[in-house]
Amino acid sequence: MSDGIDSIHHINFLVRDLDAAEQRYRSVLGLGPAIRDELPGRQVITARFKLGDSWLVLVQPTSEEGEPARYLRENGEGFFLIAFGVNDLDVAMQRAKEAGSGFTTDEPRTGLDGWRTIDVDPADTFGAIIQLTEE
Amino acid sequence: MSDGIDSIHHINFLVRDLDAAEQRYRSVLGLGPAIRDELPGRQVITARFKLGDSWLVLVQPTSEEGEPARYLRENGEGFFLIAFGVNDLDVAMQRAKEAGSGFTTDEPRTGLDGWRTIDVDPADTFGAIIQLTEE
Repeated sequence: MSDGIDSIHHINFLVRDLDAAEQRYRSVLGLGPAIRDELPGRQVITARFKLGDSWLVLVQPTSEEGEPARYLRENGEGFFLIAFGVNDLDVAMQRAKEAGSGFTTDEPRTGLDGWRTIDVDPADTFGAIIQLTEE
Repeated sequence: MSDGIDSIHHINFLVRDLDAAEQRYRSVLGLGPAIRDELPGRQVITARFKLGDSWLVLVQPTSEEGEPARYLRENGEGFFLIAFGVNDLDVAMQRAKEAGSGFTTDEPRTGLDGWRTIDVDPADTFGAIIQLTEE
């Protein structure tokens, strides 16, 4: 394994109605049932599909607070963020720092399923919200 | 193989300066050199990285014409579209039609590397531009 990126770990789309979106993605794309989760720390509920070595995650905010709700309000439904899979997040963070990049928080947070994840400073990433994630 | 989606085939991000974006992604994410292509039919140049079973594609319009240039003008840099990998595009299109979905063109077009691809009607997809792609 390299210490670089080895996958698109997950990609998140914001939706207003998780049930409708899950149903639509399932019927259009021919997918089985999603795994449902709740992430109280982000104030969202999620429905995720495993596609090859990536997760497609539909995200519905459950309150008006928090970053996902703010992003949905300002940008509407659609793409929210992409997370690249790394096998050692500390190594990947160190490399990014040495390349002059920053992160929006000092420490990684815990996402779905215990994923350890951190957001790259969006000033670096040409308009895309990018995370690094280690399982 | 199922006749459903088996991967995130590629995900495209629009950028204004392909050289700067490729360099930035390489240094932040620890990636090797991208594969460069030109798609005159879409009036873009591209730099793509293989990540697991997916391609990350950076896209720079080369003129003011065409859909990528229009999207960049209206939305700025960042996420453009996601393409789901299918092993039989005709089967996948038929299933999507039976689920009530439309496509923005009657027939697939040829993308990078001869990929056969078609855009799902964005009215169906909660704000995301979605393609189906067969290699």
